Amino acid sequence: MGNVFLNLMDPDEVKEIIESLNIRRKIEKIPLSDVYQRVLAEDIYASINLPPFDRSSMDGYAVSAKDTFGASEDNPISLALIEKIGAGDVPLKKVGQGRCSEIGTGAPLPEGADSVVMVEFTDIKEDNVQIYEAVAPGTNIAARGSDMEKGRLLLSRGTLLTPDKIGAISAIGMSEVLVFAKPIVAVISTGNELVKPDQELRYGQLYDINSETISNAVKSCGCIPLSSNIVKDDYNSIMDKINEFRNADVIITSGGTSAGAGDVLRQVVEDMGRVLVHGISVKPGKPTLIGTLPDENVDIILFGLPGYPVSALMIFEAFVSQFLREMAGVLEYNEKKELRVLKLSRRYHSARGRSHLVLVKIEGDVASPILKDSGAITALAEADGYFEVPKNVEIIEKDEKIKVIPLSGF
Amino acid sequence: MGNVFLNLMDPDEVKEIIESLNIRRKIEKIPLSDVYQRVLAEDIYASINLPPFDRSSMDGYAVSAKDTFGASEDNPISLALIEKIGAGDVPLKKVGQGRCSEIGTGAPLPEGADSVVMVEFTDIKEDNVQIYEAVAPGTNIAARGSDMEKGRLLLSRGTLLTPDKIGAISAIGMSEVLVFAKPIVAVISTGNELVKPDQELRYGQLYDINSETISNAVKSCGCIPLSSNIVKDDYNSIMDKINEFRNADVIITSGGTSAGAGDVLRQVVEDMGRVLVHGISVKPGKPTLIGTLPDENVDIILFGLPGYPVSALMIFEAFVSQFLREMAGVLEYNEKKELRVLKLSRRYHSARGRSHLVLVKIEGDVASPILKDSGAITALAEADGYFEVPKNVEIIEKDEKIKVIPLSGF
Repeated sequence: MGNVFLNLMDPDEVKEIIESLNIRRKIEKIPLSDVYQRVLAEDIYASINLPPFDRSSMDGYAVSAKDTFGASEDNPISLALIEKIGAGDVPLKKVGQGRCSEIGTGAPLPEGADSVVMVEFTDIKEDNVQIYEAVAPGTNIAARGSDMEKGRLLLSRGTLLTPDKIGAISAIGMSEVLVFAKPIVAVISTGNELVKPDQELRYGQLYDINSETISNAVKSCGCIPLSSNIVKDDYNSIMDKINEFRNADVIITSGGTSAGAGDVLRQVVEDMGRVLVHGISVKPGKPTLIGTLPDENVDIILFGLPGYPVSALMIFEAFVSQFLREMAGVLEYNEKKELRVLKLSRRYHSARGRSHLVLVKIEGDVASPILKDSGAITALAEADGYFEVPKNVEIIEKDEKIKVIPLSGF
Repeated sequence: MGNVFLNLMDPDEVKEIIESLNIRRKIEKIPLSDVYQRVLAEDIYASINLPPFDRSSMDGYAVSAKDTFGASEDNPISLALIEKIGAGDVPLKKVGQGRCSEIGTGAPLPEGADSVVMVEFTDIKEDNVQIYEAVAPGTNIAARGSDMEKGRLLLSRGTLLTPDKIGAISAIGMSEVLVFAKPIVAVISTGNELVKPDQELRYGQLYDINSETISNAVKSCGCIPLSSNIVKDDYNSIMDKINEFRNADVIITSGGTSAGAGDVLRQVVEDMGRVLVHGISVKPGKPTLIGTLPDENVDIILFGLPGYPVSALMIFEAFVSQFLREMAGVLEYNEKKELRVLKLSRRYHSARGRSHLVLVKIEGDVASPILKDSGAITALAEADGYFEVPKNVEIIEKDEKIKVIPLSGF
């Protein structure tokens, strides 16, 4: 196997390759009560008029407007009260010609009525209502279909189902909707030095971090992570583990960056499929690998992240997260995710020729770069987001404005 | 019962009352694999040094620095290679006095070594390594405890557990953590006109919207919603339903705003406990009620939202959501939730004397107010967020900057 020299690619070139990958979105029908944070996979049209009937938007009296013409404080008009209609009631009597019905907010308008006089502009004496204000037809009424006519588009495919949008679906009485199925993402940590939690550390060993970090980042992109046990850094162990996950849509490995071991993953992917990227001109995360493994339908995509936890998470955020969201159907995420424009706390010096991804801690409107090496765990404990320094920028001055991208999951 | 006049309170006064409510936070221990988006209920201290041993941060050769002094391109120093140490290996041999060991990134330093020469500055001939660069002690080494010493604070109580923070916990090998238990919130829709999904609408009936809207908004605040069936707008039905949910931490009702019906909820709460607020000087949402029901330990808090879906959601967002997040322990949410400063698309005119909560649709950096009545469902379908107009502001001009608060769940 030996050392393979990395052919470093520009970050933008890598992003183009990722965007050109074939993905297949699966869809599924689920109950409305389970759709929170899922993504709509169908256009939803109003199957009924909204509101479904002419209704009162105030508490008051349903009248024929012309019966009120001329009414004023000084010169009230008296109408005979013939019925009381609350929300959910079905009106039985016809108003107009000197007759009116008491009506509650949301209650259906009785026959003959074209407007509602607010209770504040009336007075009641026995069964006679004094009307102190003239109303025009349509006053205080929400007409059938005035909010949305039956057949119109209510929500589009690709809508993230937040509480308000779920409410809109409830309004037309749907109890099940088509959503994009969550892609299945296998997460594999490789490394001879890694052990699982709660075990005693022997000299030279570390607790596995990336399994949890990447699995949870996968959740934040609307996908389902499948976690594996830790895999040793050798050809057969890695190949066997990848074969175990041939049912996944995406496989994400991390680690194998110890001397020469990076080449093992490359060799496995070359033997099983195709290596598209090996080496990105970015810091941290240079030895990243991207490949495809042939499958019956659409190829399985494999991302090989670096082993250091900060590097793995940064490459995930910058190159993998958006791809997973696309696959999960979260089409509008990018435009709605707000970049925070913040002041840099100190001068930042970047090495030329490589893009930098820099973790920051946010306090108020100030972002402080976390200047620790990629093996530092405290960087993860402190980080709130990161910013990108393009390869042609060497220095960003203190107090300059930078665009901070929040980390996934907040 | 009769009509009770609302004693309209100022929004700020209402917020103070809500902040002064007694809440009891429960905690629970759960596996690390389940903690995504939960909130840490304990301070976590590093139980081991990070890194746990002196390790190499590069691929290269572990040396005693003084053996390299004087080495240069022209004048390399030759060291005998005695061992190869990969990540996870335990070094067996001592270096120094003309001896070195090959070492991988992340591998533990052998006895006698105090620095690593990068592989780029070496050459190997049989078992002899040519060193082309002198290094100072400590070069390319991450010393034991240099990232964090055992015993130091790694993460604080109240931290939202995002992927990066979960990774930091993994680093010290913890497999279970204490988190705040999710508060239980009963969600009750009242209204004689309401029916559940998939049923045929009779004249004057509407599908229930608030059960789904509010239940999902409750989820977005880190709480567990318990949904009830729809409840009729009468004293006994409402009281029975509330009694059914005496195990909840919070009860949220909506509806009962049809003529006179608002008073039913008030009467129930007065008879079961205490009414703290009935009427807020805000549009929409004036008839909102807040009360407490005595319980063995801490009172159950009851929020009575208006029935119109937009009103119910706006009052939830503006008055209830922050309270639920506090109860769920999401202490840092408020400072991290970003308000978006956007341009108003058109002149907005607000009635004097009441605060306004105005839904907006966001396109680019422009926010367009959704000027529909609170019964409009399309407002929910279109909304991205809302802004507040204080009661003493009557007009906001086109293109003025406003602070838009995103709706929960995005």
